Amino acid sequence: MDEDESSFLRACRGNRTQRTPVWMMRQAGRYLPEYRAVREKVSFLELCRAPQLCAEVTMQPLERFDLDAAILFSDILVVFDAMGVDVEFAPGPRLPNPVRTTSDVARLRWGDPREELRYVMDAVRACKRAVTGRAPLIGFCGAPLTIISYLIEGGGSRDFEHTKRMLFSAPEVFEGLMSAMTSLLVQYLQGQVEAGADAIQIFDSWAGALTPQDYRARVLPHVDRLVREARGFGVPVIMFARGNAHHLEGIASTDADVIGVDWTMGLSTAIDVVGEDRVVQGNLDPMLLLGAPETLVARTREVVAAGRRARAHVFNLGHGISRHTDPEMAKLMIDTVHE
Amino acid sequence: MDEDESSFLRACRGNRTQRTPVWMMRQAGRYLPEYRAVREKVSFLELCRAPQLCAEVTMQPLERFDLDAAILFSDILVVFDAMGVDVEFAPGPRLPNPVRTTSDVARLRWGDPREELRYVMDAVRACKRAVTGRAPLIGFCGAPLTIISYLIEGGGSRDFEHTKRMLFSAPEVFEGLMSAMTSLLVQYLQGQVEAGADAIQIFDSWAGALTPQDYRARVLPHVDRLVREARGFGVPVIMFARGNAHHLEGIASTDADVIGVDWTMGLSTAIDVVGEDRVVQGNLDPMLLLGAPETLVARTREVVAAGRRARAHVFNLGHGISRHTDPEMAKLMIDTVHE
Repeated sequence: MDEDESSFLRACRGNRTQRTPVWMMRQAGRYLPEYRAVREKVSFLELCRAPQLCAEVTMQPLERFDLDAAILFSDILVVFDAMGVDVEFAPGPRLPNPVRTTSDVARLRWGDPREELRYVMDAVRACKRAVTGRAPLIGFCGAPLTIISYLIEGGGSRDFEHTKRMLFSAPEVFEGLMSAMTSLLVQYLQGQVEAGADAIQIFDSWAGALTPQDYRARVLPHVDRLVREARGFGVPVIMFARGNAHHLEGIASTDADVIGVDWTMGLSTAIDVVGEDRVVQGNLDPMLLLGAPETLVARTREVVAAGRRARAHVFNLGHGISRHTDPEMAKLMIDTVHE
Repeated sequence: MDEDESSFLRACRGNRTQRTPVWMMRQAGRYLPEYRAVREKVSFLELCRAPQLCAEVTMQPLERFDLDAAILFSDILVVFDAMGVDVEFAPGPRLPNPVRTTSDVARLRWGDPREELRYVMDAVRACKRAVTGRAPLIGFCGAPLTIISYLIEGGGSRDFEHTKRMLFSAPEVFEGLMSAMTSLLVQYLQGQVEAGADAIQIFDSWAGALTPQDYRARVLPHVDRLVREARGFGVPVIMFARGNAHHLEGIASTDADVIGVDWTMGLSTAIDVVGEDRVVQGNLDPMLLLGAPETLVARTREVVAAGRRARAHVFNLGHGISRHTDPEMAKLMIDTVHE
């Protein structure tokens, strides 16, 4: 495959493609027995830190399915290794020392991920070697709000109480954290592109924690800068903010090449919001992969049909694939997209 | 107070009120030291099953704050006592025997809550005696999707995997459950109104589990029936579906007297969706109560101002009050609404 012929990259750049390109969020993951076999030997963090193993699991879904892109096997939270912040996976992420006060923030170290996350850059290079001739490689990072929310909450959260307490009582501390994190993420993405990533996806997994008003005022300016600077590195940027459809208009105001859409809204509604001149990615409810095959096929076709109204469409799930998915159902979906 | 003069009931019936009525979801709860004192002596379920104690804790926030309505102290899951389904709170709800197959469903017993939940009806009567002359009493239930999702998942859930697996692989089983649960909830609400509830709120706490397409096709017809039959009992019905702003248009298609709006969208945007001829309830982000007082006051005023565009507005939080709230901040918000 000549990369210039990649239907995924052509779609990202705004060109209509003969067949709709498809990849799946979390496509290298626990629903694959061959991934679980690797994980029997190493922990999640050991895997993230082993470039050759990253390349191996990154390739696993491409060996099974007719996918149009590979995505680096890694985790948005490894970025904390550039800051000397401990994270455990037990199995959900836990940070023993959450950052909540001005003095907590002052103690943070903002290392350069291009230097301090060499294992990620090595993983990008290893993945790139593995996928070359087969598919383009997507690098990624978390968006600043999502990353600092883990730092502040000390793990996952339902209500984002500490994050919002900071936002509503010490907005200047929140702003300082967001700004420093954005700068660090810019360097991180630059490192990934220099190491060979052909495209970048930014995951704002916890965007839905905030009201549209607060997201727009306090988060979007940083997302906008991150997207703009990342595009400066010369590869397409996909911006995916999850959990609140009312953020979509704000996300569409950024320069992102591709607007990721989660499953919580119809793709056609999303296209109405972002405009028919934008490229969209998404957005089948991953739980459809647990249902009846004929329902999966029908709903997949609906998403493909809806995507035709956009400038271009990259088919994806509207959230990561469930670990309980039968790989044959993923194959059925992918083949349906391509039919 | 003559109930006909209640600003809350007048607003629910579509009349503009001199001052905006206000109550708070979970206003009788763990942020109050006097509630925690009661809970030191009894478990959560023991409290729900003790009518006099329910009345005592229902009154606690009314003794502190200038609230315009009381809400029955209870839980949406006690309804399982009418079905002989065990629930533990540990502290989140856990059902040891989840209902996932056709034969699980066939084994369910659909008791009449008017007979089998006498302790709830007694609690309504006790609360009604306690609030009479002070404020109207809101009764409530969970919406059918929310209740059956606990039944199917066996507790709370992030992905609603089992519920959606059923929806997408055995839609007729899902439909049967929804239909039977709706009939049971109609009886439950009838019992509460007969025991003295002056208004009803229906909580579809997990509405956001489904795409707008699935919610509309598979859930809304049941919600619509529940609302219609509940209105037939002669009191105003508030319909509150949480977690997906794209469901609001569907909710507005029901006959609910009042449309509850969660914090995930601006109230003004919500009024654009439901129409200026509807009564809305909401929707301050409860986490603002953890922030700076001046921020709380400013944002409270914004919500009150936005509500003026609706036919009438009942001020509320956009989700239950956090247990970490300082009661003085709740007082500041309530007084700001009334100023």
